[in-house]
Amino acid sequence: MEKRTAVSYRNVNITGGFWKDRQALNRNTTIYAVEDRFADTGRFEAFNFDYTPGSDKPKPHFFWDSDIAKWLESAAYILAKTPDKRLQARVDEVVENVQKHQDPNGYFNIYHTVVEPENRFRLMDHHELYCLGHLLESAVALKEAVGDTRLLDCMSRYVDYVARVFVEEKSAAFKVPGHEEIELALYRAYRCTGDEKYRRLADHFINARGYDARSIGGWCLDNYCQNHMPVREQTEAMGHCVRACYLYAGMADAARYMDDPEMLDACRALFDDITLRKMYITGGIGSTHCGEAFTVPYDLPNDTAYTETCAAIALAMFANRMKDLELDAKYADTAELAMYNGILSGLSLDGVGFFYENPLELNLSDRTRHTTVRDPGERLPITRRKEVFDCSCCPPNVTRFIASIGDYAYSADGDAVYVHQYFESEAVFDGVTLKADTAYPADGRVVLTLKGAKGKTLYARVPGWCRRFDADKPCCIKNGYAAFTVGQDDETFTLQFDMPVITVCADPRVRANAGKVAVMRGPVVYCLEAIDANAPLADIRLPHDAAFSLKGSEFGLPSITVNAVRTQEFSVKSLYLPLSDVKSAPLPVTLIPYYAFANRSECDMRVWIGKC
Amino acid sequence: MEKRTAVSYRNVNITGGFWKDRQALNRNTTIYAVEDRFADTGRFEAFNFDYTPGSDKPKPHFFWDSDIAKWLESAAYILAKTPDKRLQARVDEVVENVQKHQDPNGYFNIYHTVVEPENRFRLMDHHELYCLGHLLESAVALKEAVGDTRLLDCMSRYVDYVARVFVEEKSAAFKVPGHEEIELALYRAYRCTGDEKYRRLADHFINARGYDARSIGGWCLDNYCQNHMPVREQTEAMGHCVRACYLYAGMADAARYMDDPEMLDACRALFDDITLRKMYITGGIGSTHCGEAFTVPYDLPNDTAYTETCAAIALAMFANRMKDLELDAKYADTAELAMYNGILSGLSLDGVGFFYENPLELNLSDRTRHTTVRDPGERLPITRRKEVFDCSCCPPNVTRFIASIGDYAYSADGDAVYVHQYFESEAVFDGVTLKADTAYPADGRVVLTLKGAKGKTLYARVPGWCRRFDADKPCCIKNGYAAFTVGQDDETFTLQFDMPVITVCADPRVRANAGKVAVMRGPVVYCLEAIDANAPLADIRLPHDAAFSLKGSEFGLPSITVNAVRTQEFSVKSLYLPLSDVKSAPLPVTLIPYYAFANRSECDMRVWIGKC
Repeated sequence: MEKRTAVSYRNVNITGGFWKDRQALNRNTTIYAVEDRFADTGRFEAFNFDYTPGSDKPKPHFFWDSDIAKWLESAAYILAKTPDKRLQARVDEVVENVQKHQDPNGYFNIYHTVVEPENRFRLMDHHELYCLGHLLESAVALKEAVGDTRLLDCMSRYVDYVARVFVEEKSAAFKVPGHEEIELALYRAYRCTGDEKYRRLADHFINARGYDARSIGGWCLDNYCQNHMPVREQTEAMGHCVRACYLYAGMADAARYMDDPEMLDACRALFDDITLRKMYITGGIGSTHCGEAFTVPYDLPNDTAYTETCAAIALAMFANRMKDLELDAKYADTAELAMYNGILSGLSLDGVGFFYENPLELNLSDRTRHTTVRDPGERLPITRRKEVFDCSCCPPNVTRFIASIGDYAYSADGDAVYVHQYFESEAVFDGVTLKADTAYPADGRVVLTLKGAKGKTLYARVPGWCRRFDADKPCCIKNGYAAFTVGQDDETFTLQFDMPVITVCADPRVRANAGKVAVMRGPVVYCLEAIDANAPLADIRLPHDAAFSLKGSEFGLPSITVNAVRTQEFSVKSLYLPLSDVKSAPLPVTLIPYYAFANRSECDMRVWIGKC
Repeated sequence: MEKRTAVSYRNVNITGGFWKDRQALNRNTTIYAVEDRFADTGRFEAFNFDYTPGSDKPKPHFFWDSDIAKWLESAAYILAKTPDKRLQARVDEVVENVQKHQDPNGYFNIYHTVVEPENRFRLMDHHELYCLGHLLESAVALKEAVGDTRLLDCMSRYVDYVARVFVEEKSAAFKVPGHEEIELALYRAYRCTGDEKYRRLADHFINARGYDARSIGGWCLDNYCQNHMPVREQTEAMGHCVRACYLYAGMADAARYMDDPEMLDACRALFDDITLRKMYITGGIGSTHCGEAFTVPYDLPNDTAYTETCAAIALAMFANRMKDLELDAKYADTAELAMYNGILSGLSLDGVGFFYENPLELNLSDRTRHTTVRDPGERLPITRRKEVFDCSCCPPNVTRFIASIGDYAYSADGDAVYVHQYFESEAVFDGVTLKADTAYPADGRVVLTLKGAKGKTLYARVPGWCRRFDADKPCCIKNGYAAFTVGQDDETFTLQFDMPVITVCADPRVRANAGKVAVMRGPVVYCLEAIDANAPLADIRLPHDAAFSLKGSEFGLPSITVNAVRTQEFSVKSLYLPLSDVKSAPLPVTLIPYYAFANRSECDMRVWIGKC
């Protein structure tokens, strides 16, 4: 089995371009904004464990540990690069509280200590193991980032306790987590510490899944939490998308550490089922708010898309693990699609607002169409980003993703260096210094300079969106990667990926996109907002020979202007007219990067545009 | 104010063609099928008034009187033309039960006698006055059809009682009906009997509406039952569509009998608001199941259309009254559209199955898209007609509509004869004998022979769908009617309405139909069913120069074959491909009349088809 080693963000410095700006915004604004909102809502205070029923303090929720854990993890990634007293102080506060309040037996959970202590490990639909997973990830992040092992020591004891309860005593009321995440976290702790106990517990939860097929209760069926069959038999992506992709990422780790080709085959099948049948063009997943779930193949409604920010992140995490188990550009392509579209759209341009859902179409009139009843009984995504949600999993997931974006760029094995994502960056790994000079994705030119790689092979991904590329050195193409032999100790490779504006169609089985096209440039999906088009968006069509031109970079990347077409107002008073009586008129419109929608005004938006 | 006199169905014999077959099916099959289902469900038995709480008899519902009343009315229309022992016996049974169980004070209502007697005229959201309205209509129908005045005598006493309670004593808990219908029924009784008391009570309910603006309770707002403002001020069609159009039909009668131009203006505004902004191309109305209501202008979703059969009938009734108050072909055009499409689709071709909702698009996969939760929380129209519903207002509404279709054809005043609908028929009215020879809508040729009309003007409607017509006599066109001077005692006029297959567009503000066309021939809307097209329906497009040809008449009218286009399966495994890589392929498909959908199999269907 192929087993490349991903290069850690710690060894990758983003030195310029798109992501340098994003990381600066994340470091200077977003991380503090999330901290403030979590403080306002009592999430940090909850770590004091001083809530009592009837007190005026906010009642902790059973996933608050995980919100703070993801914030801690984000802080760790930032602290690894930039000392920050404020962040460090908050990290210390939380870690000290964990040390202080951890149960002598190792158990740690806010909610199930101060609100429902009697229900520890009794409720499968609660999130104790999910919270542990995130706390464990942040503990590993703190150790790796700044050598702070305090939290990892605590979580190590918690893991011992969980192993006793779930593996030895089998005394819990359920066998596997109702919300997966701990699996990938345990493998990560194993990767960091080499301690087999983490790996054994991860293997246990992965292997036990689907053998007591049952739902987590309530309105969910057993496939909601991927507990409907043993994981090696799962070939269709089902259920709650975040749960699913966290599990699949854990399965990819399991395939690696168990050396299990059967598990890898399951991962391949699940990845293909998602990306060939159930993924929006933005890299978003989740076609319905009911269960925040996958539905059936090709069911990809745009206006009611759920496409949770966390789900796109989880898909990127799954893809990023797969890329090191199988050399195929489709994995990094998918991570890239999510990165520039379905994930980034979750954050406002000013860095303080968030979307939980990232629809591909907004129709404001749908919100006021029910004029005669009190309860319209319809649910539509919100149209403005918010600073915090009751279920605020997405904001700290975005901060940790952006702070650790370097994790996605490179990997290595003894004989080769792999470039998966193109960031202007400098990286040192495996005895190699790799410098990438590029404005990607603003343009498609990439100059890679390698030192100390003589005799190795350089694999540079040719993005799936790219129809034509030039290289200044001979190469062969392998599974979507251009393979170059590095002949010198200090050698430069120049790649030019042709990056025109193109229109894209969906598989004809995707009903929602029939007769429509999406506009892309490189990996970036564009959208049309009502403030940039003087006509009902649904009526706007792109001619077959649409002439696109780039304009400015108000949103970090160019906007696109195009001469579209609209329908002229009917000449006679009628709701319906013969096609022969209907005239069209040219309409110049501007398209902006999808990730930038809903930043200038609350208005209609759509990714999929009519064509004529 | 113009006041033409509509010619009663009693003076119009449908002698051949499309409607003769429909009336035969209605008379020989449908009327009995509805009777049987109403008998099975205890609706007829309920007129014995022997239900007692806890008894094993079915508990009457508060609208059962109206179900039976509409059946009685249908039976009357049939008996007017064809003696039928079985129908007559059932009519006698019901009428005798009414005579037997009517309260001495005149009150008559099954539910509020045997189930909730304490709540007589206390619950605005119950249907006592609506039930009286339908019983009164059936009483008038029986008198006019067969001279049977027994039921009218009963209802006359009930009307006296209602006038005392609502007008003199004002002792009811509400001021106006929660479900309108009685208004048009009272004006109809006035028209039949000349008794002013009916008209006075109708005027009262019309004039009182909207002065104590309030909802009927529960989740409804006051516009749900058109009680949000005085009727003369209403210009936007709002609320429950059947309630609305029954009211508007009553308002049209009120305009006529009150000689009230202000009322007529309100009717005009409401009619235009419906037909220019809120009506489906099938003549169906009701864009949402929430409140079975109108929504906002241009909000016409096809798959979740409510478009209740009764609502299309109510719109036709409204239009049919308006045509005699204002000479404008748009009124008969709208009645015709509903007649051949949104009403007829409510009845199966075998005459025994019914749709309550008549959607313009069926996507079966939407019914199984939620795979991970127990309650998808979505509501979609049914995909197979049923023989009876719990709320079975539509079936007897269809039987009465078809049996009395002759009501829509002609009207007269001293100087002129008006032909609004083209049925192969013979009619005698106003001293004139009018014979129409035509296969309309199978083709557009109509030969009208008038006897005894010398010196009168013949107004023959030029259908709104017709772009070109020939006449063998000189005429001028007035508001969509061809006006001929009748020069002889026995004169024939031959009209040829060009009836090609055409594609139709919706106003660009109708989002649901953007980039799509509907196919029509004459007044008949066609649809595409999955069993006639080997591709996902959403992917099928009609070329700009589509070549249509007529085929057979399996459904009473020709089907249409056309060479459409589909997308070829993607050449590479991908959910999304550049437009330049996507190929199309020709696909011959067959379209059938919309009214005939869902008769051969349960499958996807759509009226609005993509274009390229």
